[in-house]
Amino acid sequence: MSESVFITDVGPRDGLQNQPKVLSIDERLQLVRAIAAAGVPQIEVGSFVSPKAVPAMAGTDQVLAALEAPEFATPTIALIPNMKGYELARAAGAKTVTMVLYASDGMAQKNAAMSMLETEAVTLDILKLAKQDGIEVIATIAVSFECPFDGPTDPALVQTIVAKFLDAGADQLVLADTIGAAHPQQVRELTAALVATHGSAQLGCHFHDTRAMGLANVYAAVESGIRRFDSSIAGLGGCPFAPGASGNVATDDIAMMLQQMGFDTGIDLDTLMEASDLAETLTGTAPGGRSKAWLKGYLAKQER
Amino acid sequence: MSESVFITDVGPRDGLQNQPKVLSIDERLQLVRAIAAAGVPQIEVGSFVSPKAVPAMAGTDQVLAALEAPEFATPTIALIPNMKGYELARAAGAKTVTMVLYASDGMAQKNAAMSMLETEAVTLDILKLAKQDGIEVIATIAVSFECPFDGPTDPALVQTIVAKFLDAGADQLVLADTIGAAHPQQVRELTAALVATHGSAQLGCHFHDTRAMGLANVYAAVESGIRRFDSSIAGLGGCPFAPGASGNVATDDIAMMLQQMGFDTGIDLDTLMEASDLAETLTGTAPGGRSKAWLKGYLAKQER
Repeated sequence: MSESVFITDVGPRDGLQNQPKVLSIDERLQLVRAIAAAGVPQIEVGSFVSPKAVPAMAGTDQVLAALEAPEFATPTIALIPNMKGYELARAAGAKTVTMVLYASDGMAQKNAAMSMLETEAVTLDILKLAKQDGIEVIATIAVSFECPFDGPTDPALVQTIVAKFLDAGADQLVLADTIGAAHPQQVRELTAALVATHGSAQLGCHFHDTRAMGLANVYAAVESGIRRFDSSIAGLGGCPFAPGASGNVATDDIAMMLQQMGFDTGIDLDTLMEASDLAETLTGTAPGGRSKAWLKGYLAKQER
Repeated sequence: MSESVFITDVGPRDGLQNQPKVLSIDERLQLVRAIAAAGVPQIEVGSFVSPKAVPAMAGTDQVLAALEAPEFATPTIALIPNMKGYELARAAGAKTVTMVLYASDGMAQKNAAMSMLETEAVTLDILKLAKQDGIEVIATIAVSFECPFDGPTDPALVQTIVAKFLDAGADQLVLADTIGAAHPQQVRELTAALVATHGSAQLGCHFHDTRAMGLANVYAAVESGIRRFDSSIAGLGGCPFAPGASGNVATDDIAMMLQQMGFDTGIDLDTLMEASDLAETLTGTAPGGRSKAWLKGYLAKQER
């Protein structure tokens, strides 16, 4: 039996909030359902942020409501920026939330108008509530490798944050290369150190492809034992407050590479191509996976 | 002092022969000189193949003649497919030639109208002559990882070919992922085995980016100790006889990644962007490096 890698598609959140077109609730649901149909095991379906700041994420409560089990079996995540977001997510019936921590003050100020330590304090408060509420918590550490404002991130700082929040009871810790600045040697070293200390079960990585090193970084993390990755259908994504950031690693590409390496992702590539095409059609700007031209030709040939 | 990685730009050969527009000798020289100006340590400037089969490579003798030292200091390579090509390259004053070996009969037949073993025999004959003539020889093993006709390549076959041709006196052996099909785990394993047996000084890798894994494969090979890579300015390239193959790994991207990882490549990225722009202008089809949009913004900011 093949070893598994667990992919979370963050396109309907990280992707849609970072492209110009605001999709309707129905279009967002179409996209989520298409990704789920391909067998992607978990989907970040939206965020509870200010609809004034991020109009594309308005109505995430309606998205969650429409995706209630048992009609929709794929586990969903909602991102929350603060306590108000947590309360909205809880009220909307979220089972899992992603909270954002920061490995630099520059990014924490720009993105959350707080210091790094203030975001940690807020997150610890939310974490306590979530435990009482039975809500699963993923803590994503933004700029885990480099910050566009403060420069390279000290790996020791990331290690400290990971240890603190695993101790505090976070279910998952995700290292986010928010601006797509990490190089694979750096990823290899930090992830190897973290896996050596904490094991890999609760650790994940989130890469952007700004410098074309997205898949190289995924491979480096896999080499260290990481088995959880965020990616985005058709490479949708970016970060509106991080200069130079571009799309997430495409689910199309990461699924193809990991399956070729012999891992089981649970994803059907044919159906994934339909979801990827839909993402391109709905947004008009999704780049599509970098291997998509090849992959579609390959899949067509397999079917003949 | 940083450790060095040695990059050979094969764009003026592997790139130009695989895009629709036939450049003039002057345009080819402009491109080679622009790449050299950026400090790329070695350039494959053309091939001695039939001008009927590959019109883009007609006049490689004139290219070599115009690039004679001491006016042009960067070492150049000419690719040769057979004994006739060798004789033409020698007559044109080539100091280094690349010969193509094959790790599958399917590709050898399609590309050279010979069996694998026949191409080995021809190459051994040429190698003997080249030794007498004082010409350096690089042997590139096509489809070292997968063949579009015969499927996955047996790593043991590649190991046998490498050992045979190092014994026979080849100066370098290059593993070519001709169709961009290799995945990084596969690259890591084969290169680690070869470096363990032969050391890394005479080994290189040549990746295409068809499945978006080009940089991941470069990183995997670097992890095994490989320090020589082929790449192509602006990602020019492909293989006309290999279905689904697309451009080489872009010199733009590989230089950026390796420098970010702390390696010395001798390449000035600013000047390399000029060569990359020229490749795009001259051909009209070069994709440009995948990190180029980011890299240009970054370099512009450094200069302010």
